[in-house]
This record gives sequence, structure tokens and C-alpha cells, in this order.
Amino acid sequence: MTTAPWDFGIQKELKMVEARLHEMVRSPEKVLNEASLHVIDAGGKRLRPTVTILTYKALGGSDVKKAVEIAAGFELIHSATLIHDDINDGGSTRRGRETVYKKYGLHNAVVTGDFLFAKAFRIGGVFDEVVVQTTADACAALAEGEIIQNRYRHKPDLTIDTYLKVAEYKTAQPIRAGAMVGAYLAGGSSEQVQALGNYGLDLGIAFQIIDDVLDFTGDEKKTGKVAGNDLKEGNLTLPSLLAMKDSPEIRNALLAVISKATPSHEDVRKCARLVIKSGAIDKAKGMGEYYGMEALGHLGCLANNEYSRGLRELVKRVLDRDS
Amino acid sequence: MTTAPWDFGIQKELKMVEARLHEMVRSPEKVLNEASLHVIDAGGKRLRPTVTILTYKALGGSDVKKAVEIAAGFELIHSATLIHDDINDGGSTRRGRETVYKKYGLHNAVVTGDFLFAKAFRIGGVFDEVVVQTTADACAALAEGEIIQNRYRHKPDLTIDTYLKVAEYKTAQPIRAGAMVGAYLAGGSSEQVQALGNYGLDLGIAFQIIDDVLDFTGDEKKTGKVAGNDLKEGNLTLPSLLAMKDSPEIRNALLAVISKATPSHEDVRKCARLVIKSGAIDKAKGMGEYYGMEALGHLGCLANNEYSRGLRELVKRVLDRDS
Repeated sequence: MTTAPWDFGIQKELKMVEARLHEMVRSPEKVLNEASLHVIDAGGKRLRPTVTILTYKALGGSDVKKAVEIAAGFELIHSATLIHDDINDGGSTRRGRETVYKKYGLHNAVVTGDFLFAKAFRIGGVFDEVVVQTTADACAALAEGEIIQNRYRHKPDLTIDTYLKVAEYKTAQPIRAGAMVGAYLAGGSSEQVQALGNYGLDLGIAFQIIDDVLDFTGDEKKTGKVAGNDLKEGNLTLPSLLAMKDSPEIRNALLAVISKATPSHEDVRKCARLVIKSGAIDKAKGMGEYYGMEALGHLGCLANNEYSRGLRELVKRVLDRDS
Repeated sequence: MTTAPWDFGIQKELKMVEARLHEMVRSPEKVLNEASLHVIDAGGKRLRPTVTILTYKALGGSDVKKAVEIAAGFELIHSATLIHDDINDGGSTRRGRETVYKKYGLHNAVVTGDFLFAKAFRIGGVFDEVVVQTTADACAALAEGEIIQNRYRHKPDLTIDTYLKVAEYKTAQPIRAGAMVGAYLAGGSSEQVQALGNYGLDLGIAFQIIDDVLDFTGDEKKTGKVAGNDLKEGNLTLPSLLAMKDSPEIRNALLAVISKATPSHEDVRKCARLVIKSGAIDKAKGMGEYYGMEALGHLGCLANNEYSRGLRELVKRVLDRDS
């Protein structure tokens, strides 16, 4: 079973989320259950449940079951989008495991994603309009982010602005929704709900930036991904964009690689080394730090307690992580 | 714009559903909007909105907007599953048009389906737990039906019982949910909600049986499908199963065709003719009539009004349709 790599006094709640996830994906159809658990048990960081539970508890929410329920809902949506995303990327591994797409085939991957959406939708029914609409809007934004990202795949004209927009839509908006819903359910004021939403948004962008940095620098054994995987799949991300900005040579080399459907392993490695040597990794980390500081800046509305300290500490962990 | 092929005094509501569907699928991402409308405007029969609105009005529901809203939600779910289903079937046409999968590609088809689910989910937020859970459970059943159907694709051992189970899960359960929700929102008693759910279930199975009959006998210009398409895709349906039951020769011929990934056009046509000549079409229609009668049998709990008459008439139209 997955364990979050951090402990902010919510281990009990996170364990309840795990149990709830396992319960929700039961099905008489074995493949639905297995393919769901293949993703759920693959060692995710449980960032989304962590954010939702911490915001809920930081604002004094006391109905643990409620927080667990909605946190499980966000993780189900996340799992569904991972499965569908891997179809789109043609990715063969995720978190060091075969993707559902590779292991169970296209049909099962499409249907298992839909099954997980339905299960998340079911959880949403217990909550009111604000919760459901906030979550649904984040899901629609996620789809829009996917479309934008795909439009620029294998193409030379992605800007840093558009990169940040994709990070916002695909990663940060769902985390924002989770933070807002946690704050709302705890009875936070509308200012607090907004502030925690902004926290989630900035934290989510920082998280995505570090993810894209680790794609270049991460230990393959820890990240479960081959270095330079984004380039291999035809996607420019922040480190590449920063490296290209200052060097026409790097720009030419990177564009040559991402324009190919299947670039050679050697070309990908060469480009990854160019990006690393350019100093762009530190610049990208610097931008991650910036979003992390912005995230912290939104927490002034919270009382100082174990959970608000957890939200602060979470920013640090997201920035310092090595997998 | 699509027009339902029937008029039961709810043309105004169905027009409102169309407007709502168009509104819901707006997106700054053009492809999401276009791919959504490609399915929504493709000439569907609007069976699901018709059932929901008729049950609502038959039980005296008077808040038209409420019925329209939930009816649009069910049609969005249906559209999402059509798009994802076409990916799985590898189908290149639907309702005489290219599928979203063929026209916009795998990535856009997966994401547009998810986008439509998110939009349906958003509509659900306005309603209470009963509505959302009834709908979500139907979506999960739909996924299970897909899995079962796929398990038997290209395989010889599908039974009529399993065929009926797939028809129930894939087609009839969502229609059942729409009927139950319509009745529930109108303030029907729990007996009425159950009875109308059973109506929807039997109507849905009858609808699927006739769909499968039309796959053999339908005018290609009207159905937008090539005759024998199910066999071509490796799926046995009720007419084939009934024809095989009484004739080892037909059984051998059909199993030879469905076991192939891409059977020849001529072999498919030959098998379709064998099924038609065997008398299995009339038997399948007879089973459709049976489910139609069962559906009518559940309507005793309704007062006699324009809309309850509409629900009766709908059974007849579903059985008599030629496209």
C-alpha cells in the first residue's frame, strides 16, 4: 500500500483514504479492480489528499470522515487522469511500473479511467453544489490543459507562459480545487477559501516545475522514469525552455529531438546533458522557489497549528523532493 | 441540430436540452467544443432526455428547468461514452458520420470524453445525493458492461444470458437511472420511482435488441451503419445467437467470421444473410416485444395524462423504429 512520504499528523486520515480507495474500486469485473489498484497502489505521493485533509484540519474541521471521503474523491480523479494520460503519451512506464495502457490494453485503460471518474462522481453526491462545481470545473480545466499540451507536442513554439498555463490547468487547478473544498467544508470564510485555493494553485505549479526538473536530474530508480523522458515524448518543459532561450545551439538540438516521433536514446541523452550543463535546472528550481514562496504567502489567514505548519512544511517538501 | 423523432408534448423541453448541451460544451479549446458537438449534433434520438422529461412530467413535475438540466446531464454522459466506445470498437463511422476517434484522433477522443463527463458531473452538483449516486452507479455499471462485452469479443462462448446482461449494463441501466431520477425529482413515491426504474430497464433492453436487429436489417442510409457491422467487429448479438442456436452450419460460419480481426466484406455479408434467412430476426424482435410489454406493465402506477401516454407510445416507437 502507498504511504505518503511525509507525516504532518494526518497519517491516520491518509490510511483511511487508502482504505476508502480500495473499497471504492471493488468490482465484479476483476480487470477493473486490478487495473484501478495497479495505479492506486503504485506509490503515489498522495499530494492531493494531503492538501485537502491539511486545509480541512488547519481550519478546525473535525468530521474526519468527511475530509477522508472528499480526499479519496480527488485521488480517484487523479488516478483516472493518469490512466488516460498514459494512453495519450503512449508512455510505457509510470512510477517504475508498466502503465495500465501497456499492461491491460487500450480498451481496459479507457474504461478503467471512466470507472474511476464514475466512482469519484459518486463521492461528490454527498456534498453540496459548491464542492461538486469546484471539482467539476477543475476536471474540465484539466481536459483543456491536456489539449493545449498536446497541441504543442513535437512543435517548436511553446512559450514559458503557455508552459505555465498547462501546468496550471493540468496539475495546479485540481490541487487548488482540493484546497478550496477542504477549506470550505471546514467552514472557512470565503477569504480563507480563496486564499487556500491560491495556495493550492501556487503549490501545484511549484510541484509541476519540480516534476519537470526531476525528469532531467532525477535518479531513475527513485523517479521510475527514464531521464529526458519529456523530450523523448516530444514535450518541452521549463528546463528545456530556459536552456533554449539563451542558446541557439541548444535550441536547434532540442527542436530536432522533439520534432521526431521516436528520437534515438543517444540524442535524448545528449540533449538532457545540454540542458543540465546550461544552468537551466537551477533557473527552473528558482522559479519553483518563487511559486513556493507565493504559496506560503497565502497562508497568513490561518491560525498557527499543527496542520497549518503542515501546509508550510509541505511546500518545502515539494521543492526539496528527489522523486 | 438534432430533433427527436417523436413528439410527446415535450418538444419545448427537448429544445431547451439542445440549447443547454450547446452551452455546456463551450470551451476556449476549439477542438473540445467541435469534437463534443460532432457527437451531440450527429442526429441522436435523444431517448435518454425523452425518458427523463416524460417521467418527470408524467408524475406532475412542474419545474421544467430542473428536468431539462438533468436530462442534459444524462445526454452528456451518453455522448461521452459513445466517444470512448468508438475508440474501443475501432469504429470509423457512427450515425453515418466519422467517429470522433477517426476525425480528431485518439488523444482528442479520450480527452473530449473526459471533458463531457466533467460537464455532466457539474450538472449533478445541483441535485441531491440520491440523484448523483443513482447516476454514478449507472456509469460504473456501464463500464462493467463494456468490460464484459469486450471479454467476449472475437470469442465463441457468449450466451444469451450474458448478452442480456451486457445490454442491461451498457444501455438499460443508464436509461433506468434517467427514469428513476425523473420520477424522484417530480416527487414520486418510492414505489413509483422503482416502477419507473423498471420501465427504463425494460425499455432499454428492448431498445438494444432492436438496435442489434437493425444492424442486420436496417437501411444503411437510415442507420448510418454498414449491415453486419457487429459481426465485422467480432461481436455476437441476439440475432446471431438465436440463429446459431438452431444450426451448427450457421454457428460455424459466424464463429469463423467473428474470430477474425478483419473478416472480408463478403464473409460478413454472407453471414448476415444466413442470420436473416434463419428466422432469427423475427425471434429477436419477439424478445424485444417481450421486454416492451414488461416495460408497459410497470406504468400502472401512473395517472393517465399526456406524458404517461407518451411513455407508452415511446415503447411502441422504440420497437417499430427503422433507424
